Amino acid sequence: MPTPMLKGLISPVLTPFNNDLSVATDLYVDFAKQLLATGGCSGLAPFGTTGEALSVSIRERMESLDALVAAGIDPKLMMPGTGLTNLEDTATLTRHAAEHGCYGAMTLPAFYFKGVSDDGLFDYYARLIDMVNHDDLRIFLYHIPQVSGVGLSIDLVRRLHEAYPEIIVGIKDSSGDWDNTAALLDIKTLITYPGAELPVIEAIKLGAPGCISATANLNGNGIAKVIDLCHAGDFDAAEDDHKTVKEIRYLFQDYAPIPAQKALLARGTGDARWNNLRPPMMAMAPEKVADLEATLKDKYSFTIGG
Amino acid sequence: MPTPMLKGLISPVLTPFNNDLSVATDLYVDFAKQLLATGGCSGLAPFGTTGEALSVSIRERMESLDALVAAGIDPKLMMPGTGLTNLEDTATLTRHAAEHGCYGAMTLPAFYFKGVSDDGLFDYYARLIDMVNHDDLRIFLYHIPQVSGVGLSIDLVRRLHEAYPEIIVGIKDSSGDWDNTAALLDIKTLITYPGAELPVIEAIKLGAPGCISATANLNGNGIAKVIDLCHAGDFDAAEDDHKTVKEIRYLFQDYAPIPAQKALLARGTGDARWNNLRPPMMAMAPEKVADLEATLKDKYSFTIGG
Repeated sequence: MPTPMLKGLISPVLTPFNNDLSVATDLYVDFAKQLLATGGCSGLAPFGTTGEALSVSIRERMESLDALVAAGIDPKLMMPGTGLTNLEDTATLTRHAAEHGCYGAMTLPAFYFKGVSDDGLFDYYARLIDMVNHDDLRIFLYHIPQVSGVGLSIDLVRRLHEAYPEIIVGIKDSSGDWDNTAALLDIKTLITYPGAELPVIEAIKLGAPGCISATANLNGNGIAKVIDLCHAGDFDAAEDDHKTVKEIRYLFQDYAPIPAQKALLARGTGDARWNNLRPPMMAMAPEKVADLEATLKDKYSFTIGG
Repeated sequence: MPTPMLKGLISPVLTPFNNDLSVATDLYVDFAKQLLATGGCSGLAPFGTTGEALSVSIRERMESLDALVAAGIDPKLMMPGTGLTNLEDTATLTRHAAEHGCYGAMTLPAFYFKGVSDDGLFDYYARLIDMVNHDDLRIFLYHIPQVSGVGLSIDLVRRLHEAYPEIIVGIKDSSGDWDNTAALLDIKTLITYPGAELPVIEAIKLGAPGCISATANLNGNGIAKVIDLCHAGDFDAAEDDHKTVKEIRYLFQDYAPIPAQKALLARGTGDARWNNLRPPMMAMAPEKVADLEATLKDKYSFTIGG
């Protein structure tokens, strides 16, 4: 049976931290529920790059996913990030996602050694699948070479998908390289999510179910509307709305999406814990936050927590 | 009390794997003991880049260090690698090294996010020290930006060493950038090990205790002789010996040090498990191994396991 596609907007959920930098589980669960209920998101990708996943321990990642499930969030709407640099620990996180019956596990390639071969990365995923050894395992490859330092070539993605058509079912392409995204969408049985809303209209025209985007944390409803219009076939209206959505995206990018969105959430919700990031990430300077907030409000009538 | 310097050659120990890719603990322990007994090494750095550390799980790394200590290797001669991308798991490995009373923990900066600030990395190490909270903690920073993707600026190293003079006691500089190594050696109370034997003579002249080098696994005696001659003040003889030592280093680099040395050990010792690498690393093609072995034997009378 082919994997059902989760359509729409998927948010790589920001991870809030308490003042001692432990995971703020209460705030995390509330925020995740809100993204699905009123934030425009049809799915969640807990512990992606935006969720500072690689700054969070294996134990904390598993306990946080447990908390989301315990709070009633349907695992079929979630594709947690599970990729580390070694097989055993990656298998632990990936198996945990499969045991919860998640939509998928979003799995980086081993990213410490650079310049490794496609054969080496193929073998890495093949052994991971053997180690997890679970009927509910579905992997979405995670291609974000500008951060991880290790990309997945089109040829490698095709080989992996052909070898494991019911396990390696999709990919998140955060490269920002449209030619790469288009080439992935050309693999017709693969589920390809662009890693941002910028190319989402063109991507949906080529068969994408939507996108997974950092800015879904704050601008979910704006992005979701564009996606919904596309799926309804109203591409002209989608293009119109997309203009503002793209401008807001570029604005967040100028300010660095993770600290910028956290800072805006702190101001908009009144919960100062949103200002906490784990090192090596740092919070945004207060004057920059005020600038960004003013621009969003004045130019786009965009407010948080309103 | 200032930290005593471990002088001489330190080997980032190759990690042998059984055919099912579990750590071959018996072979690992024997090899580590041999490096110290007859291999020219005065110290060991288990689980550095050469030891495929980031391809080995947290559990496996701790059990392997336990096995080395249980086999009678003095922890004061060891500086295991402990750096991962998040604080809690890095603290687990680092505390484990401190609890064994190791010479030090060789600790990468958090290496997932790229382009992070010095302030963010300073905070990362500061929080790590607080989390480990152990009197025997000694950290050697690990600077290998061409692999990890995240380097440590001279200014940051200086700040960390000044803030924690008895904890952040040294650095392994594997950048291959002599200007960087010389600038580190200019911080007189910092213990700086170049990450290769190529600049070891000049480094010792500026106060380095020796070097930590991938090729210590096979050419330890050759490198150690150069270092010993330097410490004895006989720099002319050291320069003479250094010529061949450098040629052998370049030869290994041409063939990729980890698979090349493992392949030579498999052929030289007869234990085929040395051919095993963990993905994403791949074994060397047999014809290349034969070429390398022939060159080493014919040109340098260099044989393994003889």
